[in-house]
Amino acid sequence: MSLKTRLQTILASQSMMRSIGAQTTVVEPGFVELQAPIGEGFRQHNGFGHAGLTFTLGDTAGGGAAITLVDEDHAVVTSEIGIHLLAPAKGDLLIARGKVIKPGKRLIVIQSDVYARQDDKERHIATLSGTMVPFKL
Amino acid sequence: MSLKTRLQTILASQSMMRSIGAQTTVVEPGFVELQAPIGEGFRQHNGFGHAGLTFTLGDTAGGGAAITLVDEDHAVVTSEIGIHLLAPAKGDLLIARGKVIKPGKRLIVIQSDVYARQDDKERHIATLSGTMVPFKL
Amino acid sequence: MSLKTRLQTILASQSMMRSIGAQTTVVEPGFVELQAPIGEGFRQHNGFGHAGLTFTLGDTAGGGAAITLVDEDHAVVTSEIGIHLLAPAKGDLLIARGKVIKPGKRLIVIQSDVYARQDDKERHIATLSGTMVPFKL
Amino acid sequence: MSLKTRLQTILASQSMMRSIGAQTTVVEPGFVELQAPIGEGFRQHNGFGHAGLTFTLGDTAGGGAAITLVDEDHAVVTSEIGIHLLAPAKGDLLIARGKVIKPGKRLIVIQSDVYARQDDKERHIATLSGTMVPFKL
Repeated sequence: MSLKTRLQTILASQSMMRSIGAQTTVVEPGFVELQAPIGEGFRQHNGFGHAGLTFTLGDTAGGGAAITLVDEDHAVVTSEIGIHLLAPAKGDLLIARGKVIKPGKRLIVIQSDVYARQDDKERHIATLSGTMVPFKL
Repeated sequence: MSLKTRLQTILASQSMMRSIGAQTTVVEPGFVELQAPIGEGFRQHNGFGHAGLTFTLGDTAGGGAAITLVDEDHAVVTSEIGIHLLAPAKGDLLIARGKVIKPGKRLIVIQSDVYARQDDKERHIATLSGTMVPFKL
Repeated sequence: MSLKTRLQTILASQSMMRSIGAQTTVVEPGFVELQAPIGEGFRQHNGFGHAGLTFTLGDTAGGGAAITLVDEDHAVVTSEIGIHLLAPAKGDLLIARGKVIKPGKRLIVIQSDVYARQDDKERHIATLSGTMVPFKL
Repeated sequence: MSLKTRLQTILASQSMMRSIGAQTTVVEPGFVELQAPIGEGFRQHNGFGHAGLTFTLGDTAGGGAAITLVDEDHAVVTSEIGIHLLAPAKGDLLIARGKVIKPGKRLIVIQSDVYARQDDKERHIATLSGTMVPFKL
């Protein structure tokens, strides 16, 4: 199974990923890009994307990046993660890019950046840092 | 308008809160409790609640606690927040309790704890610490 | 060896703890209190205690609380920790109280609060949340 | 006054910076590099640099980067900051590089990376993300 197929299978097994319409767009060792629409059901009072949506996609991109570096019969769970929100999620699409900062058997440190696309321009809206813990599926 | 009605009005204006079925159960100065079902569309691969759902409810409870301490024509936006995930979100209901640690004109520091209810028992599943910024509605 | 003696031995082996003059004042399973003067060499431009001093004592109190729950031949190392600074470190003494939020074999989640004493009154100046990893000495 | 002289003056006014022997090595708009020896009084039990030292230098580099973007009669204070420790601080020198991720009048988001130099090689030992608040001197 390719790395991309493996990740898509794991994400497709999460109803949350289906609900937000997340797509796996790039998968490389230690790096994952995901995309999701800023859907009607995931907004703030002002119509911009909700921080919960930004967090969910950014966290999953970081976890996905970690999964690319663990054994095939393993996945990861988020132990802790922090998010700095930099700008409102204006536009139609979120793009999250997660990467591994430090691999490890017991802990994997990741960072993830989230961008909102509006009129074909990307704006940096959030940055996350966190710790993923591998476990056997 | 009572503090509780004011908070319910703000949360009802967010489609994300309606999508996850969040209810405002307790509102006091500097403290808010929210509840939401662990719904079918917000789960991990194993059927437990997704970290994105836990984050969304915990963040909103912390923001709600901050809103109770700002002027009536103000709300707050999350500037940054970190979450430690302590246990799987097993059960049927999430309960998030947010409180203000340090009020302020420019910044409000909050903490929030999230519990999962299963068989009428509450289990502590997450703790959050973050910073809210007041803005005029 | 008592829990307190064990912790004092570990802290005394760190030159940083000797430099800041840290004292171990309370040790219970899952809880540790440390104290340190706001010494002349550890200040900001305005003469208040430096955030680096507050962090160092708060982090060590959290780590100490974790050590009380691991095997006698183990200590812990900080994997990650975040600090919210709530007020200036005015006064003559810092008091840090760390506690374990979630014990574990691989990871221990802690919280720690730091207080500055001025004129016999304690002021809450910082709160920390972090992850400790046990290792064999 | 040049940006570098201004920053050096601010750091020299902090006794903590003098105690750890911090030097300001690079100053550009939105970016600061600091260096400090892994001194004998700032170590762990195993002789490596203490997390408190790594935090102090990393936090100050991030704050320094923020200072480069505020008015001349302003400085900044750390509101909150999180650190992920990636590797032991082995060697003779720490190098911290802080940069501004998002400037602002009320809040400035920074990231900072700390490296330990051993045998002329740099090893990435920590990454920090935080929020700085400007204030008038």
